[in-house]
Amino acid sequence: MKTLMTALILGATSLQAQVLPNAAIEKKIDALLSKMTLEEKVGQMTQITIESLLKTQDGKVILPMTLDPEKVDVAFSKYKIGSVLNIGGDAITRDAWQKRIEILQKAALAQRLKIPMMYGVDAIRGNNYTLDAVMFPQQIAQAASFNREHAFRVGEIAAYETRATSVPWVFSPVLDLGRQAAWPRIWETYGEDPYLVAELGTATVKGFQGSNLVTDKFHVAACLKHYMGYSMPLSGHDRTPAWIPERELREYFLPQFAHAIENGAKTVMVNSAEINGVPVHASKHILTDILKDELHFQGFAVSDWQDIQYLHLRHRITRDNKESTMVAVNAGIDMSMVPFDFTFCDDLIALVKEGKVSEARIDDAVRRILRVKYEVNLFDEPLNNPKDYPLFNGKAHHQANYDFATECITLLKNQNNILPLKQGSKILVTGPTANTMRSLNGGWARNWQGTNSDETEKNHNTILEAIQQTFGTQNVAYEAGADFSKLLDVDKAIASAKNSDVIVLCLGENSYTENPGNIGDLNLDKAQIEFAEAMAKTGKPIVLVLAEGRPRIISAIEPLASAVLQSYLLGNEGGNVVAHTLSGKINPSGKLPYTYPRAANSLINYYHKYTETKAYDEAAGYDPQWEFGFGLSYTSFEYKNLKLSSNILKPNETLTISVDVSNTGAREGKEAVLLYVSDLIASVTPEVKRLRGFEKIALKVGETKTASFTLQAKDLSFINSALERVTEPGDFEVKIGGLKADFVYKTE
Amino acid sequence: MKTLMTALILGATSLQAQVLPNAAIEKKIDALLSKMTLEEKVGQMTQITIESLLKTQDGKVILPMTLDPEKVDVAFSKYKIGSVLNIGGDAITRDAWQKRIEILQKAALAQRLKIPMMYGVDAIRGNNYTLDAVMFPQQIAQAASFNREHAFRVGEIAAYETRATSVPWVFSPVLDLGRQAAWPRIWETYGEDPYLVAELGTATVKGFQGSNLVTDKFHVAACLKHYMGYSMPLSGHDRTPAWIPERELREYFLPQFAHAIENGAKTVMVNSAEINGVPVHASKHILTDILKDELHFQGFAVSDWQDIQYLHLRHRITRDNKESTMVAVNAGIDMSMVPFDFTFCDDLIALVKEGKVSEARIDDAVRRILRVKYEVNLFDEPLNNPKDYPLFNGKAHHQANYDFATECITLLKNQNNILPLKQGSKILVTGPTANTMRSLNGGWARNWQGTNSDETEKNHNTILEAIQQTFGTQNVAYEAGADFSKLLDVDKAIASAKNSDVIVLCLGENSYTENPGNIGDLNLDKAQIEFAEAMAKTGKPIVLVLAEGRPRIISAIEPLASAVLQSYLLGNEGGNVVAHTLSGKINPSGKLPYTYPRAANSLINYYHKYTETKAYDEAAGYDPQWEFGFGLSYTSFEYKNLKLSSNILKPNETLTISVDVSNTGAREGKEAVLLYVSDLIASVTPEVKRLRGFEKIALKVGETKTASFTLQAKDLSFINSALERVTEPGDFEVKIGGLKADFVYKTE
Repeated sequence: MKTLMTALILGATSLQAQVLPNAAIEKKIDALLSKMTLEEKVGQMTQITIESLLKTQDGKVILPMTLDPEKVDVAFSKYKIGSVLNIGGDAITRDAWQKRIEILQKAALAQRLKIPMMYGVDAIRGNNYTLDAVMFPQQIAQAASFNREHAFRVGEIAAYETRATSVPWVFSPVLDLGRQAAWPRIWETYGEDPYLVAELGTATVKGFQGSNLVTDKFHVAACLKHYMGYSMPLSGHDRTPAWIPERELREYFLPQFAHAIENGAKTVMVNSAEINGVPVHASKHILTDILKDELHFQGFAVSDWQDIQYLHLRHRITRDNKESTMVAVNAGIDMSMVPFDFTFCDDLIALVKEGKVSEARIDDAVRRILRVKYEVNLFDEPLNNPKDYPLFNGKAHHQANYDFATECITLLKNQNNILPLKQGSKILVTGPTANTMRSLNGGWARNWQGTNSDETEKNHNTILEAIQQTFGTQNVAYEAGADFSKLLDVDKAIASAKNSDVIVLCLGENSYTENPGNIGDLNLDKAQIEFAEAMAKTGKPIVLVLAEGRPRIISAIEPLASAVLQSYLLGNEGGNVVAHTLSGKINPSGKLPYTYPRAANSLINYYHKYTETKAYDEAAGYDPQWEFGFGLSYTSFEYKNLKLSSNILKPNETLTISVDVSNTGAREGKEAVLLYVSDLIASVTPEVKRLRGFEKIALKVGETKTASFTLQAKDLSFINSALERVTEPGDFEVKIGGLKADFVYKTE
Repeated sequence: MKTLMTALILGATSLQAQVLPNAAIEKKIDALLSKMTLEEKVGQMTQITIESLLKTQDGKVILPMTLDPEKVDVAFSKYKIGSVLNIGGDAITRDAWQKRIEILQKAALAQRLKIPMMYGVDAIRGNNYTLDAVMFPQQIAQAASFNREHAFRVGEIAAYETRATSVPWVFSPVLDLGRQAAWPRIWETYGEDPYLVAELGTATVKGFQGSNLVTDKFHVAACLKHYMGYSMPLSGHDRTPAWIPERELREYFLPQFAHAIENGAKTVMVNSAEINGVPVHASKHILTDILKDELHFQGFAVSDWQDIQYLHLRHRITRDNKESTMVAVNAGIDMSMVPFDFTFCDDLIALVKEGKVSEARIDDAVRRILRVKYEVNLFDEPLNNPKDYPLFNGKAHHQANYDFATECITLLKNQNNILPLKQGSKILVTGPTANTMRSLNGGWARNWQGTNSDETEKNHNTILEAIQQTFGTQNVAYEAGADFSKLLDVDKAIASAKNSDVIVLCLGENSYTENPGNIGDLNLDKAQIEFAEAMAKTGKPIVLVLAEGRPRIISAIEPLASAVLQSYLLGNEGGNVVAHTLSGKINPSGKLPYTYPRAANSLINYYHKYTETKAYDEAAGYDPQWEFGFGLSYTSFEYKNLKLSSNILKPNETLTISVDVSNTGAREGKEAVLLYVSDLIASVTPEVKRLRGFEKIALKVGETKTASFTLQAKDLSFINSALERVTEPGDFEVKIGGLKADFVYKTE
C-alpha cells in the first residue's frame, strides 16, 4: 500500500492525465445523452435527501428508518432523480446501508434508460454515518501531522469503508482556508496555510479516488468543499457574508481547489454564502469562468443544502424559487441538493421550455454528472458486494487511526520537562473534556452535531479512561469540576487536587458544526477560565489538555499551566493518544496548522504583512500565543548546513535546498521540517514568509537526516494587482528551522 | 449665522459651483507656474514637520519651541518648501502660533517668486493644538446628535479659531467609515453609516470652508481623511492591511468622499495602509482614476506622515525611498508629508530629470497646490491679524460647545426612570473615568495622545467636579475604586456605596489614538468588569456612565446597571453635560452612531444582510447590545401617519415621505427622526435596511411636528457586481420609528 501511495502522491503526472476525458466514457455519454428526454436530464441534476423518501408519521421519520415505496416511486418514476444524499438522523449499520442502496438502485434501474442513482454521503474523516466505521482525527488535527501519507491513508480507508456500504461518493475533503479562528468549521479545514491545504487536500483526494476509479470498487469520487471563499465570513458566523477581493480570492482561496482539480477531483460542492454581495450559487464568474473555463474542471458542481432555494429565501436576490433555479443553473450549478421536494425539476423543465435556460447548459450539466457516474463504475457495479470489504472496521484500520493520531497531537508547552509524567504519579483528571467522546470527535460523528458520540463510541476510551488504563486506576482520581460553561463542584476538585501530584486539566469545547457552533467570543468560556484559576491556586502543577475545534483564547490561564497539550479533535483514538503522550509512550510531533491567537480581537495569521509585525508596531504587532508551525517534542532537533544549489534561480531552473536535521535529544522522534520563503520586495506587499515545502522525518537518537526541497519560479509567484500570477525578479530568503539563506531570482 | 448655515447646508447648489475652476485664479496659476523652476515646483510639493525646523539639543527639541533660523533657511532658500505641518509636542499659545507663522511666512516670501507657505494643522473638533481653543465633542459623539447644523458649527468655529492663529488649512474631518469596533480611531469617525458620515462630513466641510474661501479670512481649507478604505483593517489594528473588494469600496467607502468633494472640499489626506495588497499611496487606481478622473477633484492629495518613505520601509513594495517617490507621485500624490528631511526634493528632481516622473505630473500637482493656496487667500493675506478674531475662546464658542454636547450624550438604559436623579440624592461617584479630562477628550487634545488634558484643561469640569457642582459637594462622595486595568481600593468604594443612594459608575477608556490605541480584546478590561460586579453586590442602584472612544463590550455588567449613559468623548463640556443629564437639566437626545456589540467576535453592523439576522440564525443572528440609532429620552415620542406621496416611484420623480412625531411625555425634548429604506429584492444581496434621511426636531410637551423627507431613484441605488451604480425596479419598504410603508420603483 505504501508503495502505491507514494507513487500516487509523489508522481502526480499519471493522475493528471485523468483530467482529460476518457474517450470510451465520452462515447457512452454521447449515446446515452442522445436518448434522454428533458425530464430525464433534469432528473439527473436533482438530488433529494433520504429523509424525503422515508416513512414518516406526523411529519417525523419513523425509526428505524425505512424507505417509503410510494415516495421512492415518485422520486424515480415520476421525477427520474439521479442522486440521493444522507442527512439528519443518526448513523446506521452497514446492513441497513446495503438494504437502503439496494432499494434505491432498484428503483433507479427500473427506469427506461437504467441510469443508476448516485448516493452521496457526508463521510467526514471516515465513513462516519455508518456505525463502527473508523473515525480518524478531524482535518484540523490531520493537518498538524504535516504528513501527506497519513492524509492519503485517511482518504483510502474512508473510501474503502464507504464503498463497503455501496456508496460511491463522499462530500469530502474540505479545502476551505481556516484563517478565521472564530468560524465554527475551522476544525473541518487543514488550517490556515493555502499550501498545506493544497498538499493534504490533494493527498486525500488521491486516497479517495485511487489511480483508476473507472474499474475500481475500493474508491469513491471526492467532493471538494466549499468552492470557494466560504471560510472567512466577516462576522465569524457560518454562512454569512465575506469580503474577498478577486486578488485575494486567487491568492489564498483558489490554489488548493486548482491543485486538487488538476489532480483529478471529480466533484465540488459550492459555498453557501455570499462573497462581495453575490451568493456563490449565483456567481457565473466563480462557477463557470473560473471553475470550468480556467481550471478545465470536467466533473460537476453540486449545490450545498437547499442553497438554490436560499437564493430567494435567504439571500433575496431572486423573486421566487424558479428564478433561483434559473440563476443558479445558468451560473454553472450542475446538480441541485434540493433537498426536500421536486420543485427544482418542475421549474427547470419550465425554464428550458421558456428559453430561459438553454438545452446546451442542461446537456453540459448532465454530461458532467454521467461522466462521474461512469468513472465511479456505477453502471457496471451499481451495488457493491459487502463480502469484498473484509477490512471494514478491522484492526488494520484502527491501527492506522491510532498511528495517525500520534502524529497529530501537539505539545505546546513543557516547562521543566514535566511531561512525560512519571509512572506512579498520582493524577487528578478534571474538566469538561476529560470524560466525553464528543470533545474528541467533534461534529460529523455518528450524527451532524456529534451529540451521540458518548453512546455510539462507548467502546473507545475517553481521555479519562485511557489515563486510567495507562497509569493504573489506583493512581487516577477524577472530578468533573466544571462543565463547558458553568462551574460544578469546584471544592471537590480542589480537595482531590490536594491529594494528587499533578492535575490533568481537560478544557475546550463540546461537539458542534455549522451554525450551532457559532460563538460570540473566542475567549474560552469564563467558567473554564475560573476553574483553571481555582486549580492553579492548589499549587499543584497543571497539564492543560485542550480538546477543541478552534483555538479558544487561553492567554489568561496559559501562564498557570506547566504543560499544554493540544489534542484538537483527534477522533476515536484521541483518548489513548493523549494518555500515551502523557506517559511518554508517544513522543509528540504535531505542529500547529494555524496561528493560536493571544487575544480575541487580534486575529492575524502567520503569513501577515510587514506592517503587522512588531518591527512596526511594538505593542500590537503579530504576537500570538503560539505561531503556526509551532510544536514541541520530548527530544530535541538541531538544524545545520542549510545549502542552496545556487544563489541564483532563473526561469525553467530548479533550486535545490537541503538541510541536515539531527536528533540531539535522548528519545527517538519525528520532526516536520518546514520550508518558508520570503519575497523581500514585491509590487504587491509581500508576506513576511510563506510555507513552500514540508517533510516529516523520523530520527533515532543521534541520527541525522538531510531534508531536501526544490523551488522553481512558480513557487515564488503571487497574484499581482492586474490579477496575473507572476514571479518578480529580486531577492528572496529561505527559512528552515531557524536557519536562513538568500538567493536571487533573475529573468536574464 | 443660522441663516447662512442653513443656506449652505440645504442649498448645496451654489457651493457645487466652486468645484469648477475659478478663471481668475487659473490665470494666476498659469502665470506663476510658467515662471517656476523644477526645484521650485518640487518644493511646493514638499511638506516638512515643524520639528525639523526647531532648535534642538542632543536631538531633542528645546522648550519652549523656537525656530532655528539656519534650518528655516535651508528649508525655504535651498529647498523652496511649500508647506509645514505641526506634529509632536504640546499645544502652544495663540501668540506663539502667530510668531511661528510670521517667521515661516517671512522666509517663504523672501524667495524669488514670493509664494506663501501653507501651514497645515491637526485641528481636530476645534483648534486643539492651540491652548484655550474650544475643544468640541469628538466626531463619534457629534454623530450621535444626528444634527447637521451642529456639525456645521463645529467646522465654522474651528475654522475661525484656527485662522486666529494664521493657519489656513486643517487636517479634518475624518470621513472614514467606523464599522470595525476595535479599530483605535473609530471615535474619530462619524460612525458606521455611510450616509450619516457623508451628511455630517459635508456639513463640517462647509463649516470649515464657508461659501467663498477666496476672500475670506474666517475659513480654512478642509482635508478629508483618510482617502480611502482606511478604517476596516482585517486585524482591527491601525494602519494594517484591509481587504475591500472594489464593489464594497464604492458602496460603503467612496460615497462620503465623493459627496464632500462635490461640495468643494479642497484637499484629501491619503490612507496610510494597504487595500488588497496595494498601499493606497501607490494606487493610481484610487488616487488618479477615481479621485481625479471620476470625481473631478480639483484640490490636492497630501500623503500621511512619512507614508511615501514607508512604501519601502514598511510596505516593501519598492527598493528605496527614491523608487517610493516615483511610485507615489506617479500614482497621484501631490504633496509629500515627508516629514523630516529633504530627500523627497532631491529624489523627485532626479526622477524628473531621468524621465521617470513627467513634468506634466509635476505641473498638475503644483497647479493643484497653488489653486488651494489662492483659494485660502494666502497670497493676499499670508498672515492674519489676531485682532480680527475677538471671538476666539469666547463665551459664544463655549456655549456652542455645551449646546452641541447636550445633543450628543446618549441614554441607553433607564430602568424605572431612575434618571434623572432626585436632587438631594446621596451619590457615590466612582470608577476610572470619573475624575479625568482625558476620558472626556480622548486623543488629539493638547497633544497627540491627549496625555496632558488633566493639566491643560483643569479649568473645565471632570464628571466628578460637575456632579459636585450640580448636586452639591455635601451629597457627593468619590472613590476611584479602580484604574482602567487594575483594581484600587475596592473596599473603600464598597463602604462608600453603602452610605449612598446611588452609584454613578464611570467606566471606559483612557485617551489614545492611532497605534498606541490598538487593543487585543474589545471586552472592557477585566478589572473594570470586576469592579462593576463588586459595586453591584452592594445592592445600590448603578448608573453606568461610559466615557470611551469605542464600544467596549459590557454585556457581562449591563444587567447590573439600572441606567446606562454613553458620553463617548464629549470634549471639554463633557463633565457638565453628564452631570446635567443626571440631574435632568438636559433631556438626552443622542442616538448611537454605531452598533454597540454584545460580543467581541460578533461584530455585525446594522445594515447587514438577511443571512445575518435571527430569522436565519436564531442563535447567532444580529443581536447587538444596542442597535445603531438607539437612544432614549426622558420624555416619550409617538410616531403616526406615515404617508408616502405615492406608492409608485419612477425615474426623475420625487417621493415625499412624511410622518407625525408627537411628544407624549411630560418634558420637552428633541428627537432624531431616522428614515430607513429596504430594497426587498436586488441582484446584489440587499441590506436589511439603510439610513436614507434624518432630521432632528425639538418638541414641547404635547407638541406634534411633521417630519418630511424626499427620495429619488438615486437614493435607492447600489453598486451592482458590474460596478455600476444602479436602481433596480421592484419593491421597497420605508421604515420610520416603528412604522412601515411599501412602494414600488418602476422604470416604465
